[in-house]
Amino acid sequence: MKEPVRIAIVGATGYTGGELLRLLLQHPYVKVVHVTSEQSSETPLTDRLPFLGGRYNLILESFHPDKVAKKSDLIFMALSHTESMEAVRTLVEAGKKVIDLSADYRLRSPGTYEKWYGLRHSQPSLLKSAVYGLTEIYRSNIAQGCLIANPGCYPTGALLPIYPFLKAGYLDTTREIIIDAKSGISGAGRMPTGKTHFAEAHEAMVAYNVGAHRHLPEIEQEIYRIAGRRGTTLFTPYLLPVNRGILTTVYLPLNRKLSQKKLESTLDIYRDEPFIRRVAGSPNLAHVKGSNFCDISVFATASDRMAILMSAIDNLVKGAAGQAIQNMNVMMGWDERLGLMAPGFFP
Amino acid sequence: MKEPVRIAIVGATGYTGGELLRLLLQHPYVKVVHVTSEQSSETPLTDRLPFLGGRYNLILESFHPDKVAKKSDLIFMALSHTESMEAVRTLVEAGKKVIDLSADYRLRSPGTYEKWYGLRHSQPSLLKSAVYGLTEIYRSNIAQGCLIANPGCYPTGALLPIYPFLKAGYLDTTREIIIDAKSGISGAGRMPTGKTHFAEAHEAMVAYNVGAHRHLPEIEQEIYRIAGRRGTTLFTPYLLPVNRGILTTVYLPLNRKLSQKKLESTLDIYRDEPFIRRVAGSPNLAHVKGSNFCDISVFATASDRMAILMSAIDNLVKGAAGQAIQNMNVMMGWDERLGLMAPGFFP
Amino acid sequence: MKEPVRIAIVGATGYTGGELLRLLLQHPYVKVVHVTSEQSSETPLTDRLPFLGGRYNLILESFHPDKVAKKSDLIFMALSHTESMEAVRTLVEAGKKVIDLSADYRLRSPGTYEKWYGLRHSQPSLLKSAVYGLTEIYRSNIAQGCLIANPGCYPTGALLPIYPFLKAGYLDTTREIIIDAKSGISGAGRMPTGKTHFAEAHEAMVAYNVGAHRHLPEIEQEIYRIAGRRGTTLFTPYLLPVNRGILTTVYLPLNRKLSQKKLESTLDIYRDEPFIRRVAGSPNLAHVKGSNFCDISVFATASDRMAILMSAIDNLVKGAAGQAIQNMNVMMGWDERLGLMAPGFFP
Amino acid sequence: MKEPVRIAIVGATGYTGGELLRLLLQHPYVKVVHVTSEQSSETPLTDRLPFLGGRYNLILESFHPDKVAKKSDLIFMALSHTESMEAVRTLVEAGKKVIDLSADYRLRSPGTYEKWYGLRHSQPSLLKSAVYGLTEIYRSNIAQGCLIANPGCYPTGALLPIYPFLKAGYLDTTREIIIDAKSGISGAGRMPTGKTHFAEAHEAMVAYNVGAHRHLPEIEQEIYRIAGRRGTTLFTPYLLPVNRGILTTVYLPLNRKLSQKKLESTLDIYRDEPFIRRVAGSPNLAHVKGSNFCDISVFATASDRMAILMSAIDNLVKGAAGQAIQNMNVMMGWDERLGLMAPGFFP
Repeated sequence: MKEPVRIAIVGATGYTGGELLRLLLQHPYVKVVHVTSEQSSETPLTDRLPFLGGRYNLILESFHPDKVAKKSDLIFMALSHTESMEAVRTLVEAGKKVIDLSADYRLRSPGTYEKWYGLRHSQPSLLKSAVYGLTEIYRSNIAQGCLIANPGCYPTGALLPIYPFLKAGYLDTTREIIIDAKSGISGAGRMPTGKTHFAEAHEAMVAYNVGAHRHLPEIEQEIYRIAGRRGTTLFTPYLLPVNRGILTTVYLPLNRKLSQKKLESTLDIYRDEPFIRRVAGSPNLAHVKGSNFCDISVFATASDRMAILMSAIDNLVKGAAGQAIQNMNVMMGWDERLGLMAPGFFP
Repeated sequence: MKEPVRIAIVGATGYTGGELLRLLLQHPYVKVVHVTSEQSSETPLTDRLPFLGGRYNLILESFHPDKVAKKSDLIFMALSHTESMEAVRTLVEAGKKVIDLSADYRLRSPGTYEKWYGLRHSQPSLLKSAVYGLTEIYRSNIAQGCLIANPGCYPTGALLPIYPFLKAGYLDTTREIIIDAKSGISGAGRMPTGKTHFAEAHEAMVAYNVGAHRHLPEIEQEIYRIAGRRGTTLFTPYLLPVNRGILTTVYLPLNRKLSQKKLESTLDIYRDEPFIRRVAGSPNLAHVKGSNFCDISVFATASDRMAILMSAIDNLVKGAAGQAIQNMNVMMGWDERLGLMAPGFFP
Repeated sequence: MKEPVRIAIVGATGYTGGELLRLLLQHPYVKVVHVTSEQSSETPLTDRLPFLGGRYNLILESFHPDKVAKKSDLIFMALSHTESMEAVRTLVEAGKKVIDLSADYRLRSPGTYEKWYGLRHSQPSLLKSAVYGLTEIYRSNIAQGCLIANPGCYPTGALLPIYPFLKAGYLDTTREIIIDAKSGISGAGRMPTGKTHFAEAHEAMVAYNVGAHRHLPEIEQEIYRIAGRRGTTLFTPYLLPVNRGILTTVYLPLNRKLSQKKLESTLDIYRDEPFIRRVAGSPNLAHVKGSNFCDISVFATASDRMAILMSAIDNLVKGAAGQAIQNMNVMMGWDERLGLMAPGFFP
Repeated sequence: MKEPVRIAIVGATGYTGGELLRLLLQHPYVKVVHVTSEQSSETPLTDRLPFLGGRYNLILESFHPDKVAKKSDLIFMALSHTESMEAVRTLVEAGKKVIDLSADYRLRSPGTYEKWYGLRHSQPSLLKSAVYGLTEIYRSNIAQGCLIANPGCYPTGALLPIYPFLKAGYLDTTREIIIDAKSGISGAGRMPTGKTHFAEAHEAMVAYNVGAHRHLPEIEQEIYRIAGRRGTTLFTPYLLPVNRGILTTVYLPLNRKLSQKKLESTLDIYRDEPFIRRVAGSPNLAHVKGSNFCDISVFATASDRMAILMSAIDNLVKGAAGQAIQNMNVMMGWDERLGLMAPGFFP
């Protein structure tokens, strides 16, 4: 039995941190040895995440990059945007593998980052070496990377169904791509707010940041990289009264007429992917809860030159912690499915 | 004090029937005197709708058109599709005013009806005289009508925001109109099914009948009547895990560039409408629950020639029972707001 | 047409304030003329309560007792506990009728108040003249009162089913009364907290303040007044993942054997009550949502000397705003049902 | 590597079947080889349970006991009550280990079975050899058993917290034990009904079968076995608008005064149990979702001679499939935690 790889989770008490901790328990080659929280340091981890009681015996600590570097081999950064930027450099320079679940290393252009996050990027050279961690698309780069920028939940749900069509050259680059994406409320994090207060969000539904969500430049960046297109993407996100899941519908303009059969066979590119399931009819959030699956379907429409794509993911798993673990597996040269084999839960 | 107008509700025990009964209690000029149910005849109404206990003392009866015609002055038909067709004729011929909440008299073309509902329309001449009851658009026709085809819930939510832009001539008739509409589960009726079973529908979301929902021809018919356009409409409906409400997003192709200000002023056409509220930002289902309001907003986009429209309605009120009562008020020459002045409930 | 009675609502933007505003719109004799909010003064009311858009045109103001006294005839105080205490005196001394929805005037003993609310009661003499506003029980006192202490939501749900049995002398005063009460989350108010954060409260249920909830002394005070008993009451409240409603189960020790029939006839005391409905089987939260009804049932048990009582109320209506309006009607000598005739909503 | 033990699941498409399939995927020593469904035979398993897509490749078959006996080593029976009775005999006689998740072998008295299930028990001698599978209490008997009657969900949630107090002799056998138990809706099974229709059950809560639920004789039987008491138990179950979980509150009469500390130390009997967690304050359904944990707490009360016990379980895991797997592990002499180590999910 080899020594397990030592894992640290920086920012362990949020929903993403909790999900990493849940999933890593099922991973045969790693051991979480260090967990941090600024607000709850010196507190037992399971006081803040009681569902993990009986499974972890760790004490939350304040985050000190040097200490983390010393104690662990691979670090999941689960801080808020702008909070990871500096610390990541220390960890990478110490030779550690880092998977950053914040947005700090996702946008390749420091200017775009500054525009959307309101802060000058302090690590432009490190930014260049970061790998965007959409596993199915950038697997070989991830395998070589030291710093993985784990994708946002909305970009994951949107890009996975779009990718095969861009790759095949079917996109009509002159028209808008429309992305209408409905997200469960855990996507807004664990901090209480007026919008996420139970009695405001239950029996409710509302769009937000229409055309102005920070995941839009991330989506556009990747569409450009794959298809070389700089056209307009309309992105409408919603708060959906469920705990978990994103159901994404994409109205995709095509540059030619494609039959239902042809549309479906375009998804063959994913044939051997362990976490992509092609489904008939609409995907259902209920079928991916708790799992790393991305369920995808495609519909021909009454309009020859527009297809409808749909995907369902669990925003905390494939949209965050699960994909991060998938990326860890790729970085470490392990079977990509380790720690992620458990199916979701239903109902 | 005048005698109240006598009301019958045919098919009173479904959610639409219940909502009619709830709202009509607040109407000063009418009295519900007759309620029918095939499955529960001879049963007290409030055994089937206990929330109305203490407010109604009626016994459910089997539906006999002649009896209904004799006992009542105005009839709300709340049967399933295809079940109203024949009976409505008897009632109209007896000189009664009829508001049919089923789809049977909504589609002007018998051929289209047959195509979508799988049944030859047996009353084509009566169909010609039926008035489509989207109150804000066809008010003067409704005032003259004897038979009102009350609109479907999805068409109401979609057509009200689109209408001002069609009317103003801003539609680019060569491109697709995209309607992405999320509906609460009461829209599927009161009959238990696998899809509407709590544990299947809670913490879930799924699209259904993509491009093939029966409300599509109804929407297309009205777009053609208003804008003379026979182009493609893509319509994607979803089951949303809330009891009530439809949140509709329309991606509307424009034939010219319109500023945010101009887009908003296009909605001025609704300035004096008592049940249309123009809101800033996204409408929220939570703000229209229980009311007859349709909340509408419009967003300019990064694409000069596409606007995003959104609406929120309560599918059981503006999408069914409320609009039916609004239509009754118009038919009777009463203040359109009678019985509908109560705001919704929040939270 | 008489001039309407002028109403002020102090603390108008919480859920109770919103519910008062919703219901008062349906009251024929009053007009809300003044609304206050410390956090949102100078803001249009409907910015904070958009569901009321199109129904109110008021601007929120800071609370100044003298100003309120000048502008209004009757005042609903919907502030948090301890915040009403002083101001109420000013209003009462100005000859105004006051209905206080906080706990400040509910406990007759200043010592008990201090023990549970951590603050010396500054108005002990005014406290003596306050009337506990459980309408069905203290109607005649309310009719004479100037200051009504509107009951807490849990005490309303618990005391109404218990009262007839205490009144009839059936209580075994030597044993515990057990109250197990499940409340919707709006009962916790509009301020976001960790416990009421959607993703924490959805698909969850938890008891809280077991045996230590501030509504316990209120319940015990009333049991003592009615039955002269100082025995133990066990009170277990829960957060239930619904917006509205309290379902209360009482395990009531009896001093004699009572048949199911006799138990039911004990409820005959409520025969003419407009807002109490006796139901067979369990009450259901879904049947009282939005209404001022209290649905009550009683069950004989396998134990001769214990009965099970159940009640369902809407915590925001009969548990707060609705009962406050009912009390206003009694104070003013009006029909008790005014403003409260609308049934609830279902589903 | 040893050959895996071959598992059959009879009645695989319900929620319990689905949960068995989910959990068994994580078990290192078994392989599900045979799944049956009468309604969906010849259908791929994952058509009926799409959340398992990509994880199972089985075809549903009709149930034939001989075939099952031939194909598998251990059988989970997940049929409805009365459907297992006969078939179980065939399987046991064929030398197979059987874990029956129905009620058919839970009640030791054929007369009690007949009274509550309306059917004469056809296998009284087999009934005698069946072991009641409440693992923590009957572990050694389970280890020797061939036929395990897996406990009902409510009895599991009620008996686990009560047991230590009965065992210690603290029960006042002259007074009622009161059990107030709130269950998620998956407990009602997968068959759509009026009560479990989304729009009826959401924003609702209702008790049902008050004092008359079939799990009552099961609870009473075990209390008698442990404490020799034939007194009255009051059992009130509720439908709670969540998918999963039972929160049980027990009002337990004590025969002596016990301090909070003493009450807590009584739970020490569970110190080494892998699936029982003692928690401070109320257990929370949200912390056991998806896991085999039973979270327990105890509260001293204002009444010296009554304690409040609370437990939270996931009705589909510890209340059904999880405990069944725990029992399998005990029967097979394996580590009891196999297949059940994954923590639950949160949120």
